Amino acid sequence: MTHFAFHLDATDTETAARAGRWETPHGVVDTPAFMPVGTLATVKGLLPEQLKATGAQMVLSNTYHLALRPGSDIVKEMGGLHKFMDWEGPILTDSGGFQVFSLAGLRKLTDEKAVFRSHIDGSLLELSPEKAVKIQEDLGADCIMCLDECPPANDVPEKIKAAVDRTTLWAKRCRDAQVRDDQALFGIVQGGISEEMRTRSAEGLVPLGFPGYAVGGLSVGEAPVDMYRTLDFTVPHLPVEKPRYLMGVGRPEDILEAVYRGIDLFDCVLPTRNGRNAMAFTSDGPVRLRNAVHQRDERPLDPECDCTACTRYSRAYLRHLFIAKEMLGGILLSLHNIAFYQKLVRDLRNAVNSGTVAQFRANQLARWQAQS
Amino acid sequence: MTHFAFHLDATDTETAARAGRWETPHGVVDTPAFMPVGTLATVKGLLPEQLKATGAQMVLSNTYHLALRPGSDIVKEMGGLHKFMDWEGPILTDSGGFQVFSLAGLRKLTDEKAVFRSHIDGSLLELSPEKAVKIQEDLGADCIMCLDECPPANDVPEKIKAAVDRTTLWAKRCRDAQVRDDQALFGIVQGGISEEMRTRSAEGLVPLGFPGYAVGGLSVGEAPVDMYRTLDFTVPHLPVEKPRYLMGVGRPEDILEAVYRGIDLFDCVLPTRNGRNAMAFTSDGPVRLRNAVHQRDERPLDPECDCTACTRYSRAYLRHLFIAKEMLGGILLSLHNIAFYQKLVRDLRNAVNSGTVAQFRANQLARWQAQS
Repeated sequence: MTHFAFHLDATDTETAARAGRWETPHGVVDTPAFMPVGTLATVKGLLPEQLKATGAQMVLSNTYHLALRPGSDIVKEMGGLHKFMDWEGPILTDSGGFQVFSLAGLRKLTDEKAVFRSHIDGSLLELSPEKAVKIQEDLGADCIMCLDECPPANDVPEKIKAAVDRTTLWAKRCRDAQVRDDQALFGIVQGGISEEMRTRSAEGLVPLGFPGYAVGGLSVGEAPVDMYRTLDFTVPHLPVEKPRYLMGVGRPEDILEAVYRGIDLFDCVLPTRNGRNAMAFTSDGPVRLRNAVHQRDERPLDPECDCTACTRYSRAYLRHLFIAKEMLGGILLSLHNIAFYQKLVRDLRNAVNSGTVAQFRANQLARWQAQS
Repeated sequence: MTHFAFHLDATDTETAARAGRWETPHGVVDTPAFMPVGTLATVKGLLPEQLKATGAQMVLSNTYHLALRPGSDIVKEMGGLHKFMDWEGPILTDSGGFQVFSLAGLRKLTDEKAVFRSHIDGSLLELSPEKAVKIQEDLGADCIMCLDECPPANDVPEKIKAAVDRTTLWAKRCRDAQVRDDQALFGIVQGGISEEMRTRSAEGLVPLGFPGYAVGGLSVGEAPVDMYRTLDFTVPHLPVEKPRYLMGVGRPEDILEAVYRGIDLFDCVLPTRNGRNAMAFTSDGPVRLRNAVHQRDERPLDPECDCTACTRYSRAYLRHLFIAKEMLGGILLSLHNIAFYQKLVRDLRNAVNSGTVAQFRANQLARWQAQS
């Protein structure tokens, strides 16, 4: 694991927020960082050069989806994920576990493995810790994830506990199965919104010595306040000197709150999914481009944004694209929303470095809430 | 009409092919030229900078579609089509007539005007020569078209004749209705595949002194050989010193044959529509990317092409995008196909300038046919 180093440049004195630099085999990631989601080896509708222009340094791809289509063997044969999708920067792949639990027809789950049905053609497949690592080694991302069990948010305590213990068991097997030394394998803390369970999970995983830790099982239906509280009592159990990744989160305010609580890495489909559905995140809160109010609006979407959508087009044009069902609408709003998230994490880094995180958070929340 | 000039750099001695430069208020177009189609003020899925990188100098937009959505008044209010869609180069708009005859529910056609139903909401609309010019003046393209009557390819001779005469009548009214002096208004020759009718149409239009002439009513179902024969006897009736535009054509071989016969300008949806449907034009003929044969193919789509799709991706990746229904597949193949058409017209220009058109045509046709 000589290819990775995590440097903390600054830690806020009033909050748990940190600013750092994470060195990976494919370049440096400045943290806090937001990873756009490229589920099937493509961030929907965007070319890598467009993605890079938003300020994105690292992208996420989904192991479950790629294992089904085109198959990790083909990605490997084509030179690995970076070459396949032409993304030269760092990539993270999840373990596939989350989709097995949320998307696939789950057939049987034992300590040994998960047996499930493909959501595409119903074929019977299986995923074990060893297989999750093997697939991710074939894909070749810079950062890979242990297979975890992600129970529903409202599961009973005994189920949450069993999932925590199985996740710890699987994490050890993932670690032992890892062959490549140029991929950072992260452990994933589970435990729902229970302090006892999150503590149990972290205490099981930290001794295994992973180069980074993810917080999984959040943003799965619980109230935002429960997510924030869970971070409050989970993050302190994670090693200070290693990157911390909050999986699948979230809205701009969630990122703000999580950075405040010491998280370094994020991924979420919101900027791209909402972008394709004509919803833009802006400095003054969400804008829905289909609304008739934008029909003759010459103004840019967000005058504080320097992305292509905001510097070259009117709201009237963007609205027209969505009303006319033109692909370019979703493309431009995806670009903008990713640029908005990148600006948010960049601003947060600057706020940490200048010791103004609490103030930045208060100002942002007030501004966004004024509009909603 | 001081904003336009057409210079012929070379005319082939063996064929009717010409190479020229057409100066417009938004820049020079080297001819022969191919215009990608941006129906609704966007070439589907592509940003202007991507389009420009293919070598495209001029784009076409559709008056009928823009008049319905968002409305020419809105485009005008937003500063005109160039600003609205952020295309700084020349633009051509058709008159809307073709869509009225092919797409709308046609209700009534008189010498005065066409009354029809919108294909979107069924509302009753009308288009007269004067209105077609007014809408196109509001849109503000560099090159605009007279309203013509475009009868079905297999219509009876009397109907073809009536359409020719109405087209001439309307052309004069369009000319008289024109207010702006910074738009080149083209007359459109109709007449089906009849030499007598095409001659009659050209002889009616040429005395009206348009700055350019279009050949309409082809590629509407007739055999390619009939289209080529029609060009053989139509083009000689058009002024040598003015640009000639073959509307809505066509396949690469059609462009080759039409340049051979003295055509300067083209537009067609094929490169983008086929691109979105996983069909690529290549130096060795068509490639269908969904085919299983490409599943593990590391080779570029077309090794002779320098576009993004061909220089940065494998056929395996492009196939994966289509199989996974990812937007990027259609985007990359649209980009490639437009780049392929641009290379074709560039090669044709070079062939005219070097006096090798006949040879170039023979070589190309042999090569494409070897694969099909």
